[in-house]
Amino acid sequence: MRKDYLFTPGPTPIPPAVAAALARPIIHHRTPGYRALFSQVTSDLKTVFQTKHPLFTFTASGTGAMESAVVNLLSPDDGAIVVNSGKFGERWLKLCQRYGVQVVECSVPYGQTVDPETIREALHGNRSTPKHTTPKRITAVFTTLCETSTGVVHDIRAIGELVHASDAVLVVDAISGLGADELKTDAWHCDVVIAGSQKGLMLPPGLAFVSVSPKAWKVTEHVRTPRYYFDWHAYQRALAEEDTPFTPAIGLVVALAEALRLLQAEGWAHVLERHARLAKATREAVTALGLQLFAERPSNAVTAICVPTGVEGKKIVSRLRDVYGVTIAGGQGELDGKIIRLAHLGYMERFDALVAIAALEMVLGELGFPIARGKGVAEAERHLIEGHA
Amino acid sequence: MRKDYLFTPGPTPIPPAVAAALARPIIHHRTPGYRALFSQVTSDLKTVFQTKHPLFTFTASGTGAMESAVVNLLSPDDGAIVVNSGKFGERWLKLCQRYGVQVVECSVPYGQTVDPETIREALHGNRSTPKHTTPKRITAVFTTLCETSTGVVHDIRAIGELVHASDAVLVVDAISGLGADELKTDAWHCDVVIAGSQKGLMLPPGLAFVSVSPKAWKVTEHVRTPRYYFDWHAYQRALAEEDTPFTPAIGLVVALAEALRLLQAEGWAHVLERHARLAKATREAVTALGLQLFAERPSNAVTAICVPTGVEGKKIVSRLRDVYGVTIAGGQGELDGKIIRLAHLGYMERFDALVAIAALEMVLGELGFPIARGKGVAEAERHLIEGHA
Repeated sequence: MRKDYLFTPGPTPIPPAVAAALARPIIHHRTPGYRALFSQVTSDLKTVFQTKHPLFTFTASGTGAMESAVVNLLSPDDGAIVVNSGKFGERWLKLCQRYGVQVVECSVPYGQTVDPETIREALHGNRSTPKHTTPKRITAVFTTLCETSTGVVHDIRAIGELVHASDAVLVVDAISGLGADELKTDAWHCDVVIAGSQKGLMLPPGLAFVSVSPKAWKVTEHVRTPRYYFDWHAYQRALAEEDTPFTPAIGLVVALAEALRLLQAEGWAHVLERHARLAKATREAVTALGLQLFAERPSNAVTAICVPTGVEGKKIVSRLRDVYGVTIAGGQGELDGKIIRLAHLGYMERFDALVAIAALEMVLGELGFPIARGKGVAEAERHLIEGHA
Repeated sequence: MRKDYLFTPGPTPIPPAVAAALARPIIHHRTPGYRALFSQVTSDLKTVFQTKHPLFTFTASGTGAMESAVVNLLSPDDGAIVVNSGKFGERWLKLCQRYGVQVVECSVPYGQTVDPETIREALHGNRSTPKHTTPKRITAVFTTLCETSTGVVHDIRAIGELVHASDAVLVVDAISGLGADELKTDAWHCDVVIAGSQKGLMLPPGLAFVSVSPKAWKVTEHVRTPRYYFDWHAYQRALAEEDTPFTPAIGLVVALAEALRLLQAEGWAHVLERHARLAKATREAVTALGLQLFAERPSNAVTAICVPTGVEGKKIVSRLRDVYGVTIAGGQGELDGKIIRLAHLGYMERFDALVAIAALEMVLGELGFPIARGKGVAEAERHLIEGHA
């Protein structure tokens, strides 16, 4: 008998009620029943995003929604600032380059957070990257909320203030952060916010979302980059009929209605508090074990931990998975083998966090790290006892 | 107590084993277990497509995979022939136009099939459409297998012969046809074939597939249209690691493995025969009732029926749905109210076809059409009795 545990920053575990919704008989999407359900889902998602502006649902991975932001906001040779602090910052960079956008890169070493001041400089044209000339005008600033590959959360509020004061629009990849790290889309002047289904929303992957402010909408009206499947204007027209322009992943939308019901029953503020608490307990536990945190400004979605000297990072991941049935994430790209990542994202509560820490204690000990067994769990328990703030 | 019946040409009903697979705990995609499963699915899909060439899986609606063909095969100002016989032919047209492709349209009135001879003329430059100049060279020919909006199936075998003898590549939208209408991808020289999950493959919508011949691959190497999420080269590189470049709709891929298992257990030849038989029974029943078929060359995926004079077409659809729990499709665009469409696609057997015909008899009678109740069912029974060829 083996039970599997999933502690990756996407996909995240599916609650039983959502799994049951996925198994329901499929319904047709051009029907009054589906339209009403889709309208409700869109409205509930706006509450989650904390926005009053249009929100579109794509059948795609998060990257599809990211591409939609590039092709709807930028023509070739337009200027953009990209905050690059890891693999998903790099994705913005690649997307912009692929579409001929002139990029000013604000990059920081992996594990660090971006200093908003560097974005201010870039907006004022006082910053150019070696390989690029400074574009005449910055149309958009691309950043991540939580950079999933390093576990860093950026100060979106501060960045929002800066960009708001300029002509540029702010685009936030909140795919892994939404639901774990606070994000007030409208209040923080985030013009475009992107999310995915397989993270804080507790669904399988397959849906991606994007909210668009009036400032961003205005920008789209003059963009010459051709687009079809990801054309925001087609989705906006379809919204008028409570619909999407192309056949949606109906089963996932039906299950999303169920997931949103669960999140609303808990209350959005409580959802964020729960993630903050699980993340804090995990960080304190890991530190008590003598391990080092990797992120300078850690996200509440995922905790990145430096692999201690003398231990093979990839072995931690494979042994946890193959022997114990516990799936965590390793490092990506140049961080492969150097960090491990424990998510506490989505359908997660205190005992999930404890299982992750216990499993880590067991395997680190086996791999020769001088572990004080139970010390991490004990520290986490202190933070997870009912009533502890 | 109400049971719902779904007779639309996508989505189609989900078999219980596939529904159960959708409800399984989610697994991570960058694991040996998922990679092995995805490899098996890709290999089984190639058997279904009857191709030995690479096959890519997108998390998207079918339209996303259609767009992928346009952006991977054509640069702006390249020439293409589009077979336009309904809504999905029009989609090829719109996609090509959006990307600045010079289109020669081979259009036929709704309900008719394209004469392959017109494609031969267009390939030889002897055909131009009023609004367009004839492009210098035709790079690709776009067509549908089954034009879902009219129920017509095109003679892909004949078209394949013609295109094979030219420098152009043939792109076939087989989204609704695959599994119901015969399609031999390699033997019929179909360079690119597109399918979706929510039709003959008996899954919810959310996955789309594309197979690519060496001839088509060669074309992609010089294409300048920018692309990222739908870039075939990224999917080809990922296939080497039994993977996709972006997070896939994991739950749908897991369920697809189950659906393919069911189809293989039945045998692909039997799957096609079953659809042929259900379609024939439906056509004969409908004709026996005094109704007219709309498609000149009818597909085995969906039967389009002309709404008889004096009956309100939209009322047939809404009354079946709202009173009887039976969802069928009406006409789209200019066919709205003029035809109704009964699908016999995917997880469908004889009694499903009989339910659809009985429901139609009941509602047509209620709406004032002089129906001989039971006559359609009787005719269908004759074709569906065990042993009847």
